[in-house]
Amino acid sequence: MTNITVLGAGAWGTAFGQVLADAGNIVTMWAIEPEIVTDIHEHHRNSYRLPSVEQLPANMDATGDRAQAVANADIIVVAIAAQFARLALTEFKDLIPSTALVVSLMKGIERTTGKRMDEVVRESLNLPAERFVAISGPNLSKQVADRQPAATVVGCADIANARTVAKACETKYFKPFVTTDVIGLEMCGSLKNVVALAVGMARGAGYGENTAAMIETRGLAELTALGKAAGADPKTFAGLAGVGDLVATCGSPLSRNYTFGANLGKGLSVEEATKASNGVAEGVPTTGAVVALGRQLGVPTPLASAMSDVLDKGISCADMLAELFGGAITEE
Amino acid sequence: MTNITVLGAGAWGTAFGQVLADAGNIVTMWAIEPEIVTDIHEHHRNSYRLPSVEQLPANMDATGDRAQAVANADIIVVAIAAQFARLALTEFKDLIPSTALVVSLMKGIERTTGKRMDEVVRESLNLPAERFVAISGPNLSKQVADRQPAATVVGCADIANARTVAKACETKYFKPFVTTDVIGLEMCGSLKNVVALAVGMARGAGYGENTAAMIETRGLAELTALGKAAGADPKTFAGLAGVGDLVATCGSPLSRNYTFGANLGKGLSVEEATKASNGVAEGVPTTGAVVALGRQLGVPTPLASAMSDVLDKGISCADMLAELFGGAITEE
Repeated sequence: MTNITVLGAGAWGTAFGQVLADAGNIVTMWAIEPEIVTDIHEHHRNSYRLPSVEQLPANMDATGDRAQAVANADIIVVAIAAQFARLALTEFKDLIPSTALVVSLMKGIERTTGKRMDEVVRESLNLPAERFVAISGPNLSKQVADRQPAATVVGCADIANARTVAKACETKYFKPFVTTDVIGLEMCGSLKNVVALAVGMARGAGYGENTAAMIETRGLAELTALGKAAGADPKTFAGLAGVGDLVATCGSPLSRNYTFGANLGKGLSVEEATKASNGVAEGVPTTGAVVALGRQLGVPTPLASAMSDVLDKGISCADMLAELFGGAITEE
Repeated sequence: MTNITVLGAGAWGTAFGQVLADAGNIVTMWAIEPEIVTDIHEHHRNSYRLPSVEQLPANMDATGDRAQAVANADIIVVAIAAQFARLALTEFKDLIPSTALVVSLMKGIERTTGKRMDEVVRESLNLPAERFVAISGPNLSKQVADRQPAATVVGCADIANARTVAKACETKYFKPFVTTDVIGLEMCGSLKNVVALAVGMARGAGYGENTAAMIETRGLAELTALGKAAGADPKTFAGLAGVGDLVATCGSPLSRNYTFGANLGKGLSVEEATKASNGVAEGVPTTGAVVALGRQLGVPTPLASAMSDVLDKGISCADMLAELFGGAITEE
């Protein structure tokens, strides 16, 4: 039996904890919120973040004690909101076993530093590359919690460690693939939100599948070029963490970035859309980060630049599309 | 002014005819159905196949006379049902001007021969490769007819001729890209229907975006590998005609293949699903063609093989997914 601890009991952390429990591991959830710890520990539920699950597996428990949470862990899974990860992990730095693998479920870029989550986690815990594992794929939490068939990609610089984590989360309904392309997984997971904003915007403006597909395809090409320049494997972008996650995110009205974009497409200002979604969507700061990364790497970023003009200058969906598709006839 | 003739006044032929008219060309539609010719010629409508359009452009007319239709055409666009193309085109063989470019909007594989549409058109008209042009992309007819923003790919062995056709169909809402990869365009357009069947089946069985994205991504990898082995450019599969069209088709309940698959997923037999859709969907014979092509080229086709078992042996959606994702943990 493998002891696995999940740090953070949000929707995705809890759903993935259930996957790990279904796969036969002993799972301990750690959460900062005492009411969630109690709910999981006493009622085998997380009615705050994943109310659709009536009963979590028996081999899944929770604690609010950091040292107790990680003391015997073979694998530690981090599922904390991206912008709080550094702060939260610092408190675990001296507690985690020196042989434990650390898995990140987080997607995003740290706003204050522009760093990827692999960089944030490894810096916070002083973790060598071969003990860091990233997981990314088309995995909407609620559907994984419902045990609907899904696949994901598990990445580690050391492929043997990727396999260890993949085996630990393999169930009849959850199929992991492995890769060594950690940078590709991290970039796919964060950058796709810019595309989701643009697709949401087009949908909010009343356009259908043709327009959405055009934006998704050209967005994917832009992210792939950026990834290649940053040292990622272009194949990752054509796979589950790239195309797959992009399609699932852009196809689901459940996505926060899609909804934020849709409100812009309906004519709301950025301020109004921010109010409507109780805060800014991850794709908003990511848009700026993509433009900056493109400039740094010498890669054109037409979609992120057009979305930048939407967010900074308030241009309309029609103008955004004209900016994006107005040029001369070229090869794809 | 360019004279362009469209053979076939179905939904896509008519919508594309409107694009060509909007781009400033003189457009002549040819149809075998006298009532459609009259409707377009007298009322500037195609209420039989594209009722959503109130008024077709003034520079768009129709005739039922083959010789008159093509006599002065600079470009001839073929938009006839794939299985009837050979028969219909044979009657035009001695009529088309010797310098005209011939553009195919058709997607499919000829059932009796297993040939692609570029092969069928070129054989029927005895046409050299440099005068054959294929167009493929995420272009649902009704949305193009509504003038929603869309992009497409125009392919010809001679890139200058691809550019000529691209310029002829460029409008504010319709953006063509060019390529020389005709085989890639043809393969994307026909083979994606197998993936649409499988995605429809999963959706019909009640699964959401995660399962759909998993099937789309793995299906895309399968089609790309097949295309590469057949001499196509893998980049085409990552572009508008590949990912783009796949996403639009799998995301739209308007697609015939998706609907056919959804009925299978709900538990209907192949016979019942065929009755429900008034005939078999294109993806059904294409599934067999893909399995055969894979065997011929030495490329594994797990998705098409699993769908074959659905169609031939009546296995369930759960068994199809288990067959597809049941193997050992591997790299993507």
